[in-house]
Amino acid sequence: MAFTPATTEQRFVLDHVVRIAELANTERYSAASDDVVDAVLEGVGQLAAGEWAPLNRTGDTVGAKWTDRGVVMPDGFAQAYKDYVEGGWGTIGVEEEWGGQGLPFAIQTAVLDTLGSANMGFALCPTLTVGAIEALQHHGSPEQQALYLPHLATGEWTGTMNLTEPQAGSDVGALRATATPLGDGKWSIKGTKIYISFGDHDMAPNIVHLVLARTPGAPAGTKGISLFLVPKYRLKDDGTPGDFNDVRVVSIEHKMGLHASPTCVLSFGDNDDCIGELIGAELGGIRAMFTMMNNARLNVGLQGVQVAEGATQGAVAYALDRVQSARAGSPNKESVKIVEHPDVRRMLMRMKAQTQAARALVYYAAGQVDRANMGDHAARNRLELVTPLAKAHGTDLGNEVASLGIQVHGGMGYVEETGAAQYFRDARITPIYEGTNGIQAADLVGRKLGLDNGGAFAALIADIRAEAKDERLLALVDACEAIGRRLATADADDKLAASYPFLTMLSVATCGWLMERQGGVAGTDDFGRMKAAAVRFYLDQIVPEAMGLNAAATASAAVLYAIEPELFAA
Amino acid sequence: MAFTPATTEQRFVLDHVVRIAELANTERYSAASDDVVDAVLEGVGQLAAGEWAPLNRTGDTVGAKWTDRGVVMPDGFAQAYKDYVEGGWGTIGVEEEWGGQGLPFAIQTAVLDTLGSANMGFALCPTLTVGAIEALQHHGSPEQQALYLPHLATGEWTGTMNLTEPQAGSDVGALRATATPLGDGKWSIKGTKIYISFGDHDMAPNIVHLVLARTPGAPAGTKGISLFLVPKYRLKDDGTPGDFNDVRVVSIEHKMGLHASPTCVLSFGDNDDCIGELIGAELGGIRAMFTMMNNARLNVGLQGVQVAEGATQGAVAYALDRVQSARAGSPNKESVKIVEHPDVRRMLMRMKAQTQAARALVYYAAGQVDRANMGDHAARNRLELVTPLAKAHGTDLGNEVASLGIQVHGGMGYVEETGAAQYFRDARITPIYEGTNGIQAADLVGRKLGLDNGGAFAALIADIRAEAKDERLLALVDACEAIGRRLATADADDKLAASYPFLTMLSVATCGWLMERQGGVAGTDDFGRMKAAAVRFYLDQIVPEAMGLNAAATASAAVLYAIEPELFAA
Repeated sequence: MAFTPATTEQRFVLDHVVRIAELANTERYSAASDDVVDAVLEGVGQLAAGEWAPLNRTGDTVGAKWTDRGVVMPDGFAQAYKDYVEGGWGTIGVEEEWGGQGLPFAIQTAVLDTLGSANMGFALCPTLTVGAIEALQHHGSPEQQALYLPHLATGEWTGTMNLTEPQAGSDVGALRATATPLGDGKWSIKGTKIYISFGDHDMAPNIVHLVLARTPGAPAGTKGISLFLVPKYRLKDDGTPGDFNDVRVVSIEHKMGLHASPTCVLSFGDNDDCIGELIGAELGGIRAMFTMMNNARLNVGLQGVQVAEGATQGAVAYALDRVQSARAGSPNKESVKIVEHPDVRRMLMRMKAQTQAARALVYYAAGQVDRANMGDHAARNRLELVTPLAKAHGTDLGNEVASLGIQVHGGMGYVEETGAAQYFRDARITPIYEGTNGIQAADLVGRKLGLDNGGAFAALIADIRAEAKDERLLALVDACEAIGRRLATADADDKLAASYPFLTMLSVATCGWLMERQGGVAGTDDFGRMKAAAVRFYLDQIVPEAMGLNAAATASAAVLYAIEPELFAA
Repeated sequence: MAFTPATTEQRFVLDHVVRIAELANTERYSAASDDVVDAVLEGVGQLAAGEWAPLNRTGDTVGAKWTDRGVVMPDGFAQAYKDYVEGGWGTIGVEEEWGGQGLPFAIQTAVLDTLGSANMGFALCPTLTVGAIEALQHHGSPEQQALYLPHLATGEWTGTMNLTEPQAGSDVGALRATATPLGDGKWSIKGTKIYISFGDHDMAPNIVHLVLARTPGAPAGTKGISLFLVPKYRLKDDGTPGDFNDVRVVSIEHKMGLHASPTCVLSFGDNDDCIGELIGAELGGIRAMFTMMNNARLNVGLQGVQVAEGATQGAVAYALDRVQSARAGSPNKESVKIVEHPDVRRMLMRMKAQTQAARALVYYAAGQVDRANMGDHAARNRLELVTPLAKAHGTDLGNEVASLGIQVHGGMGYVEETGAAQYFRDARITPIYEGTNGIQAADLVGRKLGLDNGGAFAALIADIRAEAKDERLLALVDACEAIGRRLATADADDKLAASYPFLTMLSVATCGWLMERQGGVAGTDDFGRMKAAAVRFYLDQIVPEAMGLNAAATASAAVLYAIEPELFAA
């Protein structure tokens, strides 16, 4: 199926949700002129449609392979990655000091959106590199920055995040990897990490692993963790990759989807010859990790947008082509394109509306990153508050839309050849990694509601109220406010029991706000009319649906703890 | 993962939802004594746990294979199928005249529930045989019945349903396969059928294909269709399989899941040597097909129950075993089993509640089959009304629960080895086949709401109201009644646009009724306490959630048709 970059929609969202013109008016992001934005969207669209999308199915059917020479990508990936690097697409959001273009994070978001809509598994590779760049920009020493950032900025070298261990999944504090000082300022790294996306591959001459480990005498839990920079190949004096650094790929996972992305088990220091450098302060690992992960969470939310975009395009193309059955209630008994059937239209409209909502939410958060980077405290708080929404709700929507995409295809959707099934399989990891969506909900009620003494939450509610006109949206906002107030003082169990439905309600309220705003400025051309219809559907049907969660979001934990856990097996 | 048959739950639902004692008090089903029911549930549980469940993963990873000798099942399947046949498990619901046990359809439902919870793809084989048996019992000639039914009843021979053709998916009337009279009362069959589950395999000496085809001069559309019996091997004079009947497997589909079930493309009469017999009257095919499909729809709804049961057992076992993170708000900083975390409990409780709700709905419908078979007109109408609910909502719940099953497993859920992903992949076909869930919703608003002049719908609403006590449930029933009334006179587009959300609301109202009833008689043992908690969760959270669909179920189709279809691609 041909992939068409969603350029018009992206530009519209950048204009009206991100308000990119405000950013372009600042000194820091003055490069983000209209022309540059258009050129970026168009250029990356060409790369995505021309080179990345055609590899999407190969990525799934052939997949990354573990061999005794390391992980080998399917044919075509190395070249397509090279063209990404040479096109400068990795440099968009990186500071100019390190060879980047210094454009807003929101623009980089649009670039990754397009690449991932074309090929989500592949786009995870540059997405992870961005995390490594962020960590080094914020916490690296000048020497580390000078040695590594220029190569990471272009994507010539790629980055990974090494947090998880078999006994330490969501509980990062339980990790056991060790770093022992070697006396020369360097550290000997030892341990096994799992679920390392693009932990190895054959598209770059070096891979920069960012690894969480414990130093000698470090306290238990997250306070005892430090972050280390561990290249696959140590750098020679001239800064080029030299000796192998004893980082071995033990295996790659056999996953339900995302086959283009090798999920590695990495073993560090099997031969006691793995050397790392501390990033930031010793025991400062968890702070550095959060720098790396916060934007990574937005980028996973963005994967929800990507998969929703791809699945919607596939379903729309199919529905505009497939002829089946006459239209009910029509005197004409000729078979029609299935897009004419009301329930198929309902599914397509829902796919469009939810895809647009997810994109608005994630791009909105991305716009806050840029404002926060300029020292805007309110934007920083807003970003903190909406990050769990963007990650969890964005990925939930990706899954919902991918499932609808299969349904629109009927039996053909279940057969792998159409590609609808791949979106569905690829999407299912996104509510899990970078902090499960349950953890996002816990973050929302446990940390973000209380941010600035509740001020961050109150400000979001106030902003929505100030702009929203739709009554059902305002009713949802009222409900969210009441729940948020109650949860702020609720006990931990009640808070957490209500967290997920509350997160969904607050996400829909935020999306409804951003959708309504877009509807108000949609033009009368084809794009504008589709936008207006999607907005209306969202406000008419999806906003009221979220109100149905009010009972769950106001329930106590009592029903969940009324039984002993073993009774679940009764 | 060890599979445990849900015997206690099944018995409870048979007692309180099906009210099996009422059936056992009739002459026809007097064999369904307490002892027999218990023996059946226990016996099939042993077969399922001991032989079928261990093959579930092989079915997925090895899968049925197309070879030039036909379709070959993975090792172990032929023996496990033989033990199913020899145990008499196929004969449960078949009339005694044909070697069956004449037990209620509801008991057969419990048998298939257990087998499919252990191995859904495998259980599809006997499920399809049941469809062939039903068609022959109702529409076959005495000779056909005598020759075929005894072999189908035991499962010694298996059955298939051949409806779909490449150009005729949901639109059965568009099919092109032909049947030409041979002059001796037999017909020459020619055509290609797709999506034929267990269209070929190596577990039985013969396969009985029921094939829809057009006879010469037949009118266009569904009125021109006849049903034919086409064995893989023609019967010799002694009734045993003889010559090959020119039914060839062209290929099998490469599907996302359900790999144990070969989905065949079958070519009939490539060499003009495929002979079939008419079942029932010429041009009576669509009526016979509905006989075959109606209960097949319930059996697909039952697959939703099966996959929900399996996924729930897997997630509960994992959550009772996996230790991760301390409990929030607890002074104790020791890591706990994840079942202790509120959001994990929420997911498990939802899985339990939705699995129980799906089972109640499908078993309830099965109980109406038995009453209808005894000539109860009201039960016949009730069955007609709840069949689309059981099929569509049962399968929707299977998908929801399977997705939650992955989420409970976290990263391990996305790795194929745990089996959580298989449930998710297997489940996804069920909202599609046997009439997509959209078609079920169309059936509900287009045919079933008007049944008996609206009397069938009014009777269901009245029955729920007469028994329900929960206020939120009663509010949902009120809403359903109002929507049903409006839709009865709405135009076709508005009806269909609202059909899916209405189907969900009415399904939840029906499930809520049956759940509340169970809660009222749950004991104080472990099973009873789990039941009571699941019922409370269902009424507290899931019933109000369905009310959130009221806006969509009362919306007109206008928003969907405000744009030209091409704008979906804008």
